[in-house]
Amino acid sequence: MKLLRHGPATDEKPGLQLPDGTRIDASGFGQDWNEAFFADPQNLDRLREWADANAGSAPVLGDDVRLASCVARPSKIVCIGLNFSDHAAETGQDAPEEPIIFFKATSALCGPNDNLIIPRKSRETDWEVELAVVIGKRASYVSEDDALDHVAGYALHNDYSEREFQIKRGGQWVKGKSCDSFAPIGPFLATPDELENVNNLKMWLTVNGEQKQDGNTCNLIFNIPQLVSYLSQFMTLLPGDVISTGTPAGVGLGFDPPQFLKAGDVVELGIDGLGQSRQVAVDAS
Amino acid sequence: MKLLRHGPATDEKPGLQLPDGTRIDASGFGQDWNEAFFADPQNLDRLREWADANAGSAPVLGDDVRLASCVARPSKIVCIGLNFSDHAAETGQDAPEEPIIFFKATSALCGPNDNLIIPRKSRETDWEVELAVVIGKRASYVSEDDALDHVAGYALHNDYSEREFQIKRGGQWVKGKSCDSFAPIGPFLATPDELENVNNLKMWLTVNGEQKQDGNTCNLIFNIPQLVSYLSQFMTLLPGDVISTGTPAGVGLGFDPPQFLKAGDVVELGIDGLGQSRQVAVDAS
Repeated sequence: MKLLRHGPATDEKPGLQLPDGTRIDASGFGQDWNEAFFADPQNLDRLREWADANAGSAPVLGDDVRLASCVARPSKIVCIGLNFSDHAAETGQDAPEEPIIFFKATSALCGPNDNLIIPRKSRETDWEVELAVVIGKRASYVSEDDALDHVAGYALHNDYSEREFQIKRGGQWVKGKSCDSFAPIGPFLATPDELENVNNLKMWLTVNGEQKQDGNTCNLIFNIPQLVSYLSQFMTLLPGDVISTGTPAGVGLGFDPPQFLKAGDVVELGIDGLGQSRQVAVDAS
Repeated sequence: MKLLRHGPATDEKPGLQLPDGTRIDASGFGQDWNEAFFADPQNLDRLREWADANAGSAPVLGDDVRLASCVARPSKIVCIGLNFSDHAAETGQDAPEEPIIFFKATSALCGPNDNLIIPRKSRETDWEVELAVVIGKRASYVSEDDALDHVAGYALHNDYSEREFQIKRGGQWVKGKSCDSFAPIGPFLATPDELENVNNLKMWLTVNGEQKQDGNTCNLIFNIPQLVSYLSQFMTLLPGDVISTGTPAGVGLGFDPPQFLKAGDVVELGIDGLGQSRQVAVDAS
């Protein structure tokens, strides 16, 4: 199944993308794709039954409908730093010995095709195509063997980053990761059965049509079971929480000279099986 | 007003602490102390009216009732690092030129007198008495002059920290800040009118009755308006969000040799006007 959310930011609703690509409203199911929904593993089965019975009669969403983040605001967005060796190298750092963790404010969450808002005083707003994992069952001290039992699905994420805020303003990375609109997630959450092999998905990103990133999830230094298990040693992962697994080479910071975004730039990205998204950069008001 | 929350973790309810110290259930008001409550500044006025009319008849809470975090789970807990020069010095670091920001997972939130759960494999679990600011009105790009208009109140917080996870496990501090039970907040949120001068509050912490921390909010390097304004340049602060403003000297890491917590230790702390809390350390199951 492919779960999406749609509608204006003040009134977002659940929906589904059908196998033929049609998008339907799933308000009739009676739940949003949030912590309560993911907490009960039977809900996905119930949703599947609902879709079988109602897909033909539910309202179809037109192309003009705004897509929201495919998951409702989670308790946390956990990001993994330098999880591709080519990206670590382009930032001048060694590949980490254990996963680097940072958080992105959940207030940064937005729809996959919403505008990217370049923050005031930003000079180094950058892109990062990433595979996001959405947690199903609550995870605390889980083993790598059990980790995938705690995954509800996967989604496309652009982990926008303001490099000056992140690196040159003192202290921790969070400062450059949490601006509004810095976490477009979607178009949809794909349940694991939708992907042939989550460890072999091409991922790409272009700016104004020019290819910048061209990677594959097969090159993750720490894979998904390792990340879920590792994180769960330090915190409890709640249903609906998002883990963004890191970006391959080709971010703006890695170019010589570095390349950063300005108003009017168009960023497009995609991961095999997880769809595409598109953000137009605008200046903060 | 002094707002509290009470009841078992699975069924927490709003309450109030009256001027004479009596604690009452405020379920009759019809709202929890969460984002929706703090989003409407008139709610505090309405609550005051409700209390005037109902304080005498609302159920009184016995001393055996568990206190929950005085705010419902917020979108984020933002912490400020090294915001007292004596604490920066004891950790061997210079006072920062601009605020150091990190996040604590909101899943770490717990009641003020809940057990401290020492994480598995922890050897360096440490304490940090802190003044927490709770956001009222949404804050994005606010000036220092306007910052206090965005504050709903203040509370006591123990920013528990696992130093080995925080510092020696690669990368960012969040790894040592986010374990379950690492954010006991309360006993109550005090609205600003309850405090004569938030910039002159004694703060203290003892372990097994022995004084470890003895500070005063007058020594904050960056004060509350500066912090609210600064943070709002990097992220939108939502109603109910918590900003923990940093700890004075006297953390376990600062002793020679360092002192860390073990099961059975009793940590007590307080801030003038914001009450006291008490956590007993237990090992994670």
